[in-house]
Amino acid sequence: MKYAKSDTYQKGLALLNHLHGEEAGQQLLDNLQDVCPDFVDMTVEWAIQGIMARPGLDLLTRKYLLIASCTTLGHAVPQLKAHIASALKLGATKQQIVEVILQMTFYAVGAAVSNSLAHAKEVFENHKQ
Amino acid sequence: MKYAKSDTYQKGLALLNHLHGEEAGQQLLDNLQDVCPDFVDMTVEWAIQGIMARPGLDLLTRKYLLIASCTTLGHAVPQLKAHIASALKLGATKQQIVEVILQMTFYAVGAAVSNSLAHAKEVFENHKQ
Amino acid sequence: MKYAKSDTYQKGLALLNHLHGEEAGQQLLDNLQDVCPDFVDMTVEWAIQGIMARPGLDLLTRKYLLIASCTTLGHAVPQLKAHIASALKLGATKQQIVEVILQMTFYAVGAAVSNSLAHAKEVFENHKQ
Amino acid sequence: MKYAKSDTYQKGLALLNHLHGEEAGQQLLDNLQDVCPDFVDMTVEWAIQGIMARPGLDLLTRKYLLIASCTTLGHAVPQLKAHIASALKLGATKQQIVEVILQMTFYAVGAAVSNSLAHAKEVFENHKQ
Amino acid sequence: MKYAKSDTYQKGLALLNHLHGEEAGQQLLDNLQDVCPDFVDMTVEWAIQGIMARPGLDLLTRKYLLIASCTTLGHAVPQLKAHIASALKLGATKQQIVEVILQMTFYAVGAAVSNSLAHAKEVFENHKQ
Amino acid sequence: MKYAKSDTYQKGLALLNHLHGEEAGQQLLDNLQDVCPDFVDMTVEWAIQGIMARPGLDLLTRKYLLIASCTTLGHAVPQLKAHIASALKLGATKQQIVEVILQMTFYAVGAAVSNSLAHAKEVFENHKQ
Repeated sequence: MKYAKSDTYQKGLALLNHLHGEEAGQQLLDNLQDVCPDFVDMTVEWAIQGIMARPGLDLLTRKYLLIASCTTLGHAVPQLKAHIASALKLGATKQQIVEVILQMTFYAVGAAVSNSLAHAKEVFENHKQ
Repeated sequence: MKYAKSDTYQKGLALLNHLHGEEAGQQLLDNLQDVCPDFVDMTVEWAIQGIMARPGLDLLTRKYLLIASCTTLGHAVPQLKAHIASALKLGATKQQIVEVILQMTFYAVGAAVSNSLAHAKEVFENHKQ
Repeated sequence: MKYAKSDTYQKGLALLNHLHGEEAGQQLLDNLQDVCPDFVDMTVEWAIQGIMARPGLDLLTRKYLLIASCTTLGHAVPQLKAHIASALKLGATKQQIVEVILQMTFYAVGAAVSNSLAHAKEVFENHKQ
Repeated sequence: MKYAKSDTYQKGLALLNHLHGEEAGQQLLDNLQDVCPDFVDMTVEWAIQGIMARPGLDLLTRKYLLIASCTTLGHAVPQLKAHIASALKLGATKQQIVEVILQMTFYAVGAAVSNSLAHAKEVFENHKQ
Repeated sequence: MKYAKSDTYQKGLALLNHLHGEEAGQQLLDNLQDVCPDFVDMTVEWAIQGIMARPGLDLLTRKYLLIASCTTLGHAVPQLKAHIASALKLGATKQQIVEVILQMTFYAVGAAVSNSLAHAKEVFENHKQ
Repeated sequence: MKYAKSDTYQKGLALLNHLHGEEAGQQLLDNLQDVCPDFVDMTVEWAIQGIMARPGLDLLTRKYLLIASCTTLGHAVPQLKAHIASALKLGATKQQIVEVILQMTFYAVGAAVSNSLAHAKEVFENHKQ
């Protein structure tokens, strides 16, 4: 019943697909659709269309900031991997993504930098470049 | 006795001064000089010259990543304020810095986004632009 | 210019005033109005009207959950104090609030439980009951 | 040799069984029995009988607070799942548990809310209701 | 009315006084006595007599572990300072305490190591050695 | 091409091998060698030779501090397990390691103490003593 969604939702969905690709974008939504459909709407309307779509910073810089934040958190592994894949899709090189994670040294804990680099390696291996 | 420091230290010190200004840079070093001089050297040689000075990302993008990380951490207040002041010095507008912090919504906890905006406000008020 | 705000905002603002009182509610909004007015709108439309106003749990239980979360975070002190004051306004007894914080023992770190109890004590002292 | 345990332990064990069921309760204890039997005793005597059994808040509200805390922590996955299962056992509906997790939006990081909803989904699927 | 306290409490109180000195120990207890007397009892009976008094590691090593933990947490400032003062009382040198904090580099975030060294400096300045 | 590495690197590598054994030490380095070789060098030169090799605290005490820090973090699982294995290699008994983790009760969250004990159990089972 996505056709009854708000205009904000429709725009957010288009941006989500641009950021992650239609297949991965749809998967992100489907995952929680049955357990909490309102959270899916909030993700699309608030986090994507409300925050990511704002002017003032380009999309790739915003993705870098999210990779930095997920590296700092240490436990947001599925999100970290989704943002790394998205950054590649937006045109980042592997080396730039590694550099973003490495910049977290002394800010994130070392274990989180190390584990995030290992997660990046996994995403890179699944990504044809 | 800074003249006996390594070449890496000298380069790091120059970059620190470029990033924060000589007065604020010197203050950052002086603060811990007596309690742990080795930590001051590590900061300059490792965090500044070893990480910040790396190629692959420009300095302002690196500063944005650090603001994102400090916002995510929530308790790194002196560091957050120093990086915001440094980003202004490097040419960021207040609106861009606000946008970096706002991008942390849903990644940092809301309380940390809110408190970081309040800290940014304080730095902005002390900054002639 | 609050009169031009959305209906969602108006409803959220009324709930905010109900939760915190008009004076404290207005202060929460004014604090970040100049540095990031969009964050103020998001707080009212998303966090208050989008989350707090949902059916399924009563307002005081929701407040208890936020006190539990802030105690767990350890660094969200202004938010913790605002939620404790709001819980009192909603009819919670001091003992119930202490019990909520004490329940965090073994979940939050002990230092955060201890510091949160000290923050509760401060709020209680400023509160006529 | 549970028969030589203190009266506090016996009461805590009965409450643990009430909260999680005898099988899951026993499993929680058995898991660490050989590596650190004193930690098992502390769990039963302190966390269960010393905290959970206190008057002033009902057991289900206490469980909600623990779900809120585990969602905020982000990395306490086995504990989150055990508390969700226990809340169901105590009579909570799936929708109430989802609502408790959703209330953490803007308090826990978004990634933790999202991951916690996914963990709830798993627990719900294993639970006959 | 401390004379009616349990034997475990009495032993814990004696250890607390040994660790922090009678004046500072009493202050730690008095601080939360009115807002949550049960938390004070739990601190003495569980954290001090139940954990600190255990055999297997000497008291100073235990204090070092608590300084490491508080440095890792980043927001447990009153506790960090109390443990640093206690370690000095138990015979640690300032340099050993600095070394404990410095060892957290790459484990705690850099900001927390830096801020913890600044807190140590404050404790050292108030301490006659 | 390890033969071209700095003297600091060579010393750090020798210490890494002493701490973890040559096989596990090499594995720690190999894991991130292709995705970010500079991070491997930083680990050896900064974290091992720059921090672990410092005078003032013995190696086993330093390992205990790292186990305490990883327990406090809660999400640094591979690092926690590597440090537990290393502490055993340096001569710690299983009981001493359990005691280090147990000392984190009230400092780390209870879930992290519990999960860390479970991780220790796994390491112990893979370790011939």
